[in-house]
Amino acid sequence: MQTDTLRYRLMDAQLALARDRERAVILLLTGHAATHKGQVVNRLNHWLENRYTEVHALGPSSEEQLRPYWWRYWRRIPDRGRIGIFIHGWYGDALFARAERRLSPGAFRDRLEQIRNFEAELAAEGVVLLKLWTDIGRREQRRYLVELQRDPARAWQVGPSEWQRHAQHAPIEAIGRTLRRRTEAPHAPWQRLPFRETGEQLPQVARALLAVIEAPPESPVSQLATRAGEAPGVPSLRRVDAAVEERLDKAAYYERLALEQARLANNAREIARRRIPVVIALEGHDAAGKGGSIHRLTAALDARQYRVHRIAAPSDEELALPWAWRFWRRLPADGRIAIFDRSWYGRVLVERVEGLASEAQWQRAYGEIRHFEQQLLEHGSVLIKLFLSIDKDEQLRRFEARAAIPHKRHKLTDEDWRNRERWDDYQQAIDEMFVRTHAPGAEWLLVACDDKRHARLAVLEGVNERLEARLAWAN
Amino acid sequence: MQTDTLRYRLMDAQLALARDRERAVILLLTGHAATHKGQVVNRLNHWLENRYTEVHALGPSSEEQLRPYWWRYWRRIPDRGRIGIFIHGWYGDALFARAERRLSPGAFRDRLEQIRNFEAELAAEGVVLLKLWTDIGRREQRRYLVELQRDPARAWQVGPSEWQRHAQHAPIEAIGRTLRRRTEAPHAPWQRLPFRETGEQLPQVARALLAVIEAPPESPVSQLATRAGEAPGVPSLRRVDAAVEERLDKAAYYERLALEQARLANNAREIARRRIPVVIALEGHDAAGKGGSIHRLTAALDARQYRVHRIAAPSDEELALPWAWRFWRRLPADGRIAIFDRSWYGRVLVERVEGLASEAQWQRAYGEIRHFEQQLLEHGSVLIKLFLSIDKDEQLRRFEARAAIPHKRHKLTDEDWRNRERWDDYQQAIDEMFVRTHAPGAEWLLVACDDKRHARLAVLEGVNERLEARLAWAN
Repeated sequence: MQTDTLRYRLMDAQLALARDRERAVILLLTGHAATHKGQVVNRLNHWLENRYTEVHALGPSSEEQLRPYWWRYWRRIPDRGRIGIFIHGWYGDALFARAERRLSPGAFRDRLEQIRNFEAELAAEGVVLLKLWTDIGRREQRRYLVELQRDPARAWQVGPSEWQRHAQHAPIEAIGRTLRRRTEAPHAPWQRLPFRETGEQLPQVARALLAVIEAPPESPVSQLATRAGEAPGVPSLRRVDAAVEERLDKAAYYERLALEQARLANNAREIARRRIPVVIALEGHDAAGKGGSIHRLTAALDARQYRVHRIAAPSDEELALPWAWRFWRRLPADGRIAIFDRSWYGRVLVERVEGLASEAQWQRAYGEIRHFEQQLLEHGSVLIKLFLSIDKDEQLRRFEARAAIPHKRHKLTDEDWRNRERWDDYQQAIDEMFVRTHAPGAEWLLVACDDKRHARLAVLEGVNERLEARLAWAN
Repeated sequence: MQTDTLRYRLMDAQLALARDRERAVILLLTGHAATHKGQVVNRLNHWLENRYTEVHALGPSSEEQLRPYWWRYWRRIPDRGRIGIFIHGWYGDALFARAERRLSPGAFRDRLEQIRNFEAELAAEGVVLLKLWTDIGRREQRRYLVELQRDPARAWQVGPSEWQRHAQHAPIEAIGRTLRRRTEAPHAPWQRLPFRETGEQLPQVARALLAVIEAPPESPVSQLATRAGEAPGVPSLRRVDAAVEERLDKAAYYERLALEQARLANNAREIARRRIPVVIALEGHDAAGKGGSIHRLTAALDARQYRVHRIAAPSDEELALPWAWRFWRRLPADGRIAIFDRSWYGRVLVERVEGLASEAQWQRAYGEIRHFEQQLLEHGSVLIKLFLSIDKDEQLRRFEARAAIPHKRHKLTDEDWRNRERWDDYQQAIDEMFVRTHAPGAEWLLVACDDKRHARLAVLEGVNERLEARLAWAN
């Protein structure tokens, strides 16, 4: 293909991509230092329509350092219709950290596994990935570094880290091989980009990019769905069966409530002091009392420390990105508490039952949710998942009561009645959710809510126990 | 009103606010230290529905420090339907900085003027403001600080800054008076909140909040519109009339293009080194060559340094916030370059002509735009505004040429033809835009684009000159 033809075809393909808004494309370049990656990107960028392109090459900001590792990449995923170009991106972190022994071999393997999951999730959500390894021999690298240094116009491109990476050429080469082998996938292929004049490299890069835009690789859905089918780590659910205990009288309830809230206030202060992030997800049957429970939690908290996120239908900006993005964007900074009133479990509950997600989508969501929660735990977050349940008759009683009280009527919507008709479908989805997402550190706590007072105390106790378990770790 | 009645009425009003999604509410508390502002907010929060409330009380992050001062508040404005509670917020910055003499009297006055503009713009966009000044006498403050220190459960609330602010009680009192007097407005009223038990303060706060939710004050539109009508600072526009020069041959064009691009590359590197943010806004007639000019600019830039923002219709998240929010969110960090392909001037061009903004809205937009640009300049940004113009006949020639060339056909839309029919309306809007928004540091550069080569060189030269003028300042 002639260069000009190639260029126009690439532009055409990009414009079709922007018009259709079905897929996003990520091009990632990583590899040896002194391989003029920046120059390649600049030249390529000149071939692309910059209004639909974004380039990411910066280190993490303080806001990023206060959140789970992958937050910094989730927030930079391009919208459908756009091309995101990453220089080093998530591979640079792994590659150089391992070369400089800031990552142990085990931690490096874990990171590669995370990368595979991350890329598979993106691909399944319509993000096409292409990864280029910029290659250069040791001698050639030395020659090029010296050449740069001698040229006054380009000498600024060579700093100590370039020389350090030159000195580590052999380990980087070896780590790079492992890294490529373990993260090669049909939906996120690697290509080697040998060191040459940028003008000579450009057609290869453009052709590779054109290929993935024009004929996107198969989505890894089936693969993810299979993995998600594995048995979860811990099979036994803890159920706080508040209904079976004897009824609490009002005075006893308020006494215990005050005690639990004081306990929570103390725990929260310690959480803030030790800068531990806390994520609380509340799911449950309609009218089980999520709102009331949240109120009893927040009454004990400092308003500056927490935020309640009500998860309703996604916005159009959220719809243009992989589904998990809208939960990533709401993660709390260290020391802060995010309370999700409904959560990412909507994917395998309401979206499944109402047919808003396809079977393939909700099937793979189990695995995606486990990875998401794993990231929170790795960052040191406390993750507390509560399911507030009532039985079908009790729900009917509460719906009727709400309809009768003026200042509670707003809580009852047509949707509640519609959901109720699908009670059995929801129940099946709920059961499967427990089986597949109950895992160490991400255990579900079931709270039977037929008695409101017991239920609210159980929620507070559950949260307190989980916070104290985390605070008991060494500082 | 009984406390319980008040509480239910407030909750009802908040739910109506959330349901209607017409207005957002901001409650701001500032004033003397040791007035348990946090506690008031906590108690109030317990009365509110937390799913529609957010509390902001943190210092700026590194991402915020790299951007114009007001960015940190623009990104925290609540969506329509929500209540945002700010502890100190923009008043704390002004108050304590002045008390500690980190702000000169002049800078303090300027800041108050900015606050007035900021609040007026929010109010005009449907954000209701209520500001509480937490009051306490000097002796009473001392007594309360000592009381806190003696109580092991609350001693952590007293640190050196509380004592420092106690020592500065008199200046804080005086500064507070000036601050309240100069920022009092019907749409953003002040109320004094005398120091008492939180339980006693709460009804006052709730009543005040209820009042602004139920009967929002009048919007300051007319006031803004009047101010916007003032004559701008610099009346003479610089027009680069490329068409009148003699025609450039191809070789001469490429030679000058290469020179200008090399010059731009150098300037951009210096901009990055000195961490100066650059904002370039491109407006112009359809088919004047904005896309081509952007390409000639970006060809000289490092892809890691700039980002092109194409401004099309707002997303639904953007529609839930004051109109300027979507430009604030796209401002570049220090050392980076944001190129806006169409810009905030859409408000007084397409939105005016197509009736997407009411006359009151676009009339006040002139003032809002000037404040916005003023903020960029105060932060030390370079602001470059380019208008690419062609005449009506040349536009027709270009439309017809585009329709004839396959790979350019995508550039021509029905909208282009529709806009063309309103040529005269647009011309009137353009003229008024120049008259009202051409100001020192925010000058318009008009580029007559009937000859493409001259036009592209003129854009590059214009950008280079502005960058060099800024770089000539002392470091």
